[in-house]
Amino acid sequence: MPDISMVRPFPASAVPQWDFATDVAIIGFGATGACAAIEARTAGARVLLFERSSGSGGASALSGGEIYIGGGTDAQRAAGFDDTVEDFTAYLKLAGGPCVDEAKCELYGREALDHYQWLKDQGVPYRGNFLPGKHIEPTDDSTLIWSGSEAAAPFCHAARPAPRGHVIQHVGWGGGRPLVNILEARARDLGTEFHCDARAVALITDGARVCGAVVRIDNTNRFVRATKGVVLATGGFVFNDAMRRKYCPDSFRVNSPIGDKDDGIGIELGVSVGGDAIHMDQFFTTCPWTMPESHAYGVFVNRAGQRFINEDCYHGRVSRCAVDQDGGKVYLLLDMAHFVQPLDLAGITIAGTGNTWEEVEAELDMAPGTLSATMAVYNTHARAGRDPLFDKQVPILTPLDQAPFVALELNFATSYFSFFTLGGLRTSTDGEVLDRQGQPIAGLYAAGRCTSGLPAWGHGYSSGMSLADCTFFGRQAGKAAAA
Amino acid sequence: MPDISMVRPFPASAVPQWDFATDVAIIGFGATGACAAIEARTAGARVLLFERSSGSGGASALSGGEIYIGGGTDAQRAAGFDDTVEDFTAYLKLAGGPCVDEAKCELYGREALDHYQWLKDQGVPYRGNFLPGKHIEPTDDSTLIWSGSEAAAPFCHAARPAPRGHVIQHVGWGGGRPLVNILEARARDLGTEFHCDARAVALITDGARVCGAVVRIDNTNRFVRATKGVVLATGGFVFNDAMRRKYCPDSFRVNSPIGDKDDGIGIELGVSVGGDAIHMDQFFTTCPWTMPESHAYGVFVNRAGQRFINEDCYHGRVSRCAVDQDGGKVYLLLDMAHFVQPLDLAGITIAGTGNTWEEVEAELDMAPGTLSATMAVYNTHARAGRDPLFDKQVPILTPLDQAPFVALELNFATSYFSFFTLGGLRTSTDGEVLDRQGQPIAGLYAAGRCTSGLPAWGHGYSSGMSLADCTFFGRQAGKAAAA
Repeated sequence: MPDISMVRPFPASAVPQWDFATDVAIIGFGATGACAAIEARTAGARVLLFERSSGSGGASALSGGEIYIGGGTDAQRAAGFDDTVEDFTAYLKLAGGPCVDEAKCELYGREALDHYQWLKDQGVPYRGNFLPGKHIEPTDDSTLIWSGSEAAAPFCHAARPAPRGHVIQHVGWGGGRPLVNILEARARDLGTEFHCDARAVALITDGARVCGAVVRIDNTNRFVRATKGVVLATGGFVFNDAMRRKYCPDSFRVNSPIGDKDDGIGIELGVSVGGDAIHMDQFFTTCPWTMPESHAYGVFVNRAGQRFINEDCYHGRVSRCAVDQDGGKVYLLLDMAHFVQPLDLAGITIAGTGNTWEEVEAELDMAPGTLSATMAVYNTHARAGRDPLFDKQVPILTPLDQAPFVALELNFATSYFSFFTLGGLRTSTDGEVLDRQGQPIAGLYAAGRCTSGLPAWGHGYSSGMSLADCTFFGRQAGKAAAA
Repeated sequence: MPDISMVRPFPASAVPQWDFATDVAIIGFGATGACAAIEARTAGARVLLFERSSGSGGASALSGGEIYIGGGTDAQRAAGFDDTVEDFTAYLKLAGGPCVDEAKCELYGREALDHYQWLKDQGVPYRGNFLPGKHIEPTDDSTLIWSGSEAAAPFCHAARPAPRGHVIQHVGWGGGRPLVNILEARARDLGTEFHCDARAVALITDGARVCGAVVRIDNTNRFVRATKGVVLATGGFVFNDAMRRKYCPDSFRVNSPIGDKDDGIGIELGVSVGGDAIHMDQFFTTCPWTMPESHAYGVFVNRAGQRFINEDCYHGRVSRCAVDQDGGKVYLLLDMAHFVQPLDLAGITIAGTGNTWEEVEAELDMAPGTLSATMAVYNTHARAGRDPLFDKQVPILTPLDQAPFVALELNFATSYFSFFTLGGLRTSTDGEVLDRQGQPIAGLYAAGRCTSGLPAWGHGYSSGMSLADCTFFGRQAGKAAAA
């Protein structure tokens, strides 16, 4: 990993020569940087984009290319979902939990439909159909899926449920790569100048504002003058163990970082000139336990044999709550009506079986009357369509009473718990980086996972929320920088 | 609350005149500032101490005056506890959890006995006796109490248990005030110059180092030159709602901040010159549920009727885990052998009663087979001296089977959950404020709750840990600043 231990602002007065001159300099070429570039170019600004890797992509290209959009899209209406801006915004706020940025939720709630049209205008294709069921990503080229906790408590009581995950038309998983390709092509067509293998190491300040960046190219410092502003779009800090230890130590419970060199450099650059890094303890994690889909009907218990969540909510919310449990593992309970051999990639193993839940309990070395009592209560009420403990909803709420039974182990260390960080720079809805007093830092903008945005709270994350944040607030940052 | 919205470093070149000149300037006169002053004076430095209130005290004076000390004190040995540096250090590290600063634990582990002697040398009296049982603070003038989770799992398996809370000789609660009085008198006797009603608003930097502070006295900025250094000893940010919202939003679950104007000014001052604020999401909370003492034998359940902790650990650890539970409240279950009317001050109410646990369950509107199954499992194993779920230890582990039964409600909003913040500046073991790259900021020192120290993790806090950190690392900061 490149050393980011010397991040300090560089005084403009010490710049030996300006190697590049532009209006807007963008650091990082994932979906955020691409959207910022498109908007800045559209506004008429000269744009230079610097990416440390050898091509575009970032964490965005590793994603499913799913964007969280609501308020009544064509795909929602065609499938009979009457989503509203109010319900959509209410859901976004709930999903932000104690870390919510209400202004961002409100702005995106109002403008998401326009944003969806904008994505289409850039050339992002959507088939427009709805794929029912529980899916992590469509395996065909479908558009609309349930990608969060919309239909689950407590969300469903405060915001009328609708599916809002909109996936680029692309057969199979991995729609993030073609999404970034389209945005990259658009940014290039509009005249964005792109330098790869170019790593930002400092912001340049002239006392009054950020006026450029020092970029390391071919082992040489290159000085970039950006007369209008610098946009940070560098992603989170999931690959920076020192930062995780200081700000997000609970993330060490899980094991599989997702990202592309996300070492927190954008956060460090922003803080080096007075930016405010907030909610740095928050992270997303998920283990793909809803595959095969019948497993979505299972019940989770911790090592004390207790349920801890309504299992019908988003797989990542269940996973995040699982990681809160003591003992380094949780169990997914299934009956023969629902059990299928788990996916190899998930690293989920069979920990116990039995012809009764009492036998499973014994195989797991749990005290008599723990797991078995949990399942007795669960099944009794599930038969009546109720979950008095966690308010799980029908039809995912269903009795698990067809023997034999199985307990699958999700082990935080050895099962596949992918994760990335959610904390970062505090920004305005225009993408301005704010200082600790809430004032914009002149000339500095940021968006995506180097900021704290729509996906602010690990326990409320829903699929598509980070790309929604990256693309929409990347655009705002690009517009504001070019203004 | 004074406005701290304009915290920026002040350039020495802009200082109109130096109103005060000293070697070491200390900001804040709680236990931390007093100890820093004593050491800096002892080392021969001129010391000016500025306190925003009208006298010494800070949050320290609101405490019980209890200091966490181990490794074999006179009081421990007299009571037959053979504590060692290794066990003491191991406990400190476990108590730090994922936020632990191992170097601080190791240093304090090695030097705590000397520190205890030093406190005595300053005039802090200790009766030297041991008070058995579970106490929040002694109501007499006893010295040594069990003040943490030493005898509870998982701590007891990794570090041989010993009581380590050492309380100043003082009849009744509130030993913090006389403790600070003694330290203040000592600091004054040694020649510390003290200015009260003097609020620090900025650090002064000369480009190379922190060389002073701007202090607001009688509505006028006063410029303090500190040739050797500035020590921040201003406490946490429990009274700054904006900071809590950005960095510690879960603390809004509880209701009763403890402190004296702790608005985070020291953290803001430190960060304004490049300091690194870490573990800002951490907070301590407790509700005095172990009073009367027989209530310590109770069992806690959440709104799903599930236990969530071994209730024999420290009351603050139980309380912090309680606050993690959904639904805004938890229940403390007791039988007639243990129930006594709760203290008025705790705001704990009776939520349900019954001649069986099934009746209590019904009164709490819980589903049949939840709380009652929990208590059946608990009692069955408690009779055999085991707790297979949470490893609660005898003798606190005891069956609750003498009807009638009662469920007390601890409501996060209306019961007395006192709390304060634990996150703050990252410092070296010498009290140097470190920047984000881990390098000392020349001329700047800090200790106590404006730093992240021994009590780094809310779930691992033990009584006396914060005053141990304040007094010991306050001393280190004073010594280092004077060096």
